[in-house]
Amino acid sequence: VLDAHAEWLARAGEGDQRAIGRLISLVEAENVDLTDLSTELVARSGNAWVIGLTGSPGVGKSTTTAALVAELRRRDKRVGVLAVDPTSPFSGGALLGDRVRMNDHAADPAVYIRSLAARGRLGGLARAVPHAVRVLDALGYDVILLETVGVGQSEIDVAAAADTAVVLLAPGMGDAIQAAKAGILEVADVLVVNKADRDGAAGAVADLRRTVAGTTPRAGWRPKVVATTATDGTGIAELLDVVEEHRRHLVESGELSVRRAARLRAEIEAHALAEVQSRLNRGEAIEAAVAEVQDGRIDPHQAALDVLRTLL
Amino acid sequence: VLDAHAEWLARAGEGDQRAIGRLISLVEAENVDLTDLSTELVARSGNAWVIGLTGSPGVGKSTTTAALVAELRRRDKRVGVLAVDPTSPFSGGALLGDRVRMNDHAADPAVYIRSLAARGRLGGLARAVPHAVRVLDALGYDVILLETVGVGQSEIDVAAAADTAVVLLAPGMGDAIQAAKAGILEVADVLVVNKADRDGAAGAVADLRRTVAGTTPRAGWRPKVVATTATDGTGIAELLDVVEEHRRHLVESGELSVRRAARLRAEIEAHALAEVQSRLNRGEAIEAAVAEVQDGRIDPHQAALDVLRTLL
Repeated sequence: VLDAHAEWLARAGEGDQRAIGRLISLVEAENVDLTDLSTELVARSGNAWVIGLTGSPGVGKSTTTAALVAELRRRDKRVGVLAVDPTSPFSGGALLGDRVRMNDHAADPAVYIRSLAARGRLGGLARAVPHAVRVLDALGYDVILLETVGVGQSEIDVAAAADTAVVLLAPGMGDAIQAAKAGILEVADVLVVNKADRDGAAGAVADLRRTVAGTTPRAGWRPKVVATTATDGTGIAELLDVVEEHRRHLVESGELSVRRAARLRAEIEAHALAEVQSRLNRGEAIEAAVAEVQDGRIDPHQAALDVLRTLL
Repeated sequence: VLDAHAEWLARAGEGDQRAIGRLISLVEAENVDLTDLSTELVARSGNAWVIGLTGSPGVGKSTTTAALVAELRRRDKRVGVLAVDPTSPFSGGALLGDRVRMNDHAADPAVYIRSLAARGRLGGLARAVPHAVRVLDALGYDVILLETVGVGQSEIDVAAAADTAVVLLAPGMGDAIQAAKAGILEVADVLVVNKADRDGAAGAVADLRRTVAGTTPRAGWRPKVVATTATDGTGIAELLDVVEEHRRHLVESGELSVRRAARLRAEIEAHALAEVQSRLNRGEAIEAAVAEVQDGRIDPHQAALDVLRTLL
């Protein structure tokens, strides 16, 4: 590690928020000169618990995140919050607006909050999230909350980046419940029915519990269903207890190392594909392929194989 | 083209729904034996107008699609509907449920409806959508509606796959309007405020129009804002007129060929990356790389470059 990097590491280790931000940016740059720093961070990490928190717009993700941070602080944990915006550079503003609600913790040096936006198209988050997680992990944050707006792939990506994947629902959101029943069960370790003070909450909880009971456990675990009212903190301690129970399950069953190896594999794959994409964009082979398809001489799939042959 | 394929093509050309489905499945298989068929379809296509329709859950996408199909039939157009589910295999059920509302057109041979689910992780839709679009285009459908649940990447992908990208919003969905103001403007050619009979609709329309007026035109076009009430058809004819206006703009400005070349380029890139991913998964280099990172000898980015070197 270069002297300059060692300096940033030391300052960040003391909780200097600017230094932490600088470290994350340095690592995100993926400059080969930073391999030593990046390798050092890998070596120091592996201790933090990563909780993914996802759900449709309007289910109360930010309020729940804020309530979880408060409860984790009561339990004397250092907490990193990464607000992941899958909608790319564009709507960073909207998400940052939500961060206002986190103001309670702005002055607490044991809480670090950062927004991450997907910059490039291909696997941008699949690379940026592990980078930021690793920095916070290496700096000794005990719990890292990954919060993301979820519909579709981003939800699955964030679930894959977490040790414990929490999916939030709210009563009366028919679409969300449908999606949950159909597919979210495949990625969620914990299902939260937030806004539990609303009509239909008890029914939604019972409905989800029935659905969960009918599923086959994945690696010995069936999703748990918890009811919360994040606005007043109801159920938040219970939610963290269930996350803790899931953590123990992963550690004791050996599933944790399986999950983390799979995560690392996905990260390496994302880097490899991004590199190929970058080489594609630098080369002219693809423009020639477009012309060939437009002339009706070849189909897009064959054109792609030709491009790869030229490129590699 | 083999005799068997010629037979399917002929039957599909006569509107045989089963034959059309079979053709789409054949092309999706991406078997090298089908290169002739696939190339033939490329040669026959380019005439259909592709309308992308996206928006958050609950804005009324399916109802709007059904209303658009009805209006297009009144205008004597043959219509293909591809309901794209970005949430992958899991929640196909939920989306297919929505199709029930399309029952009015089930017996109309000039309307073809199919759901597409993202099967693999990487760019599954980026490949499946152009395949299906090309088949319907080659078979003479005049308009192809691509409907997708949109938050995040899937929305951008579908916008990129369309000639005209329509983004639906509904009044009272604060998140959606925020997202729209922040980012959807970057991908939308037409913005629709659906459920225009609800409180706040006029305000949302005015708000969006103000926001749009402040943007720089992309290739000579600023998004148009239309108000609709899809449940009773209000505004649907106007929406189609605006789409038609956008079509004329793209044709006359020469932007259409730019857009379609970019689309083809993205499709070829998706094929190339999927091929690399498949080679990664077949090889053992990535497992060795995971072990090296776990041992703290290298960082994930360097590990990826090593894997590519081994692989290619």
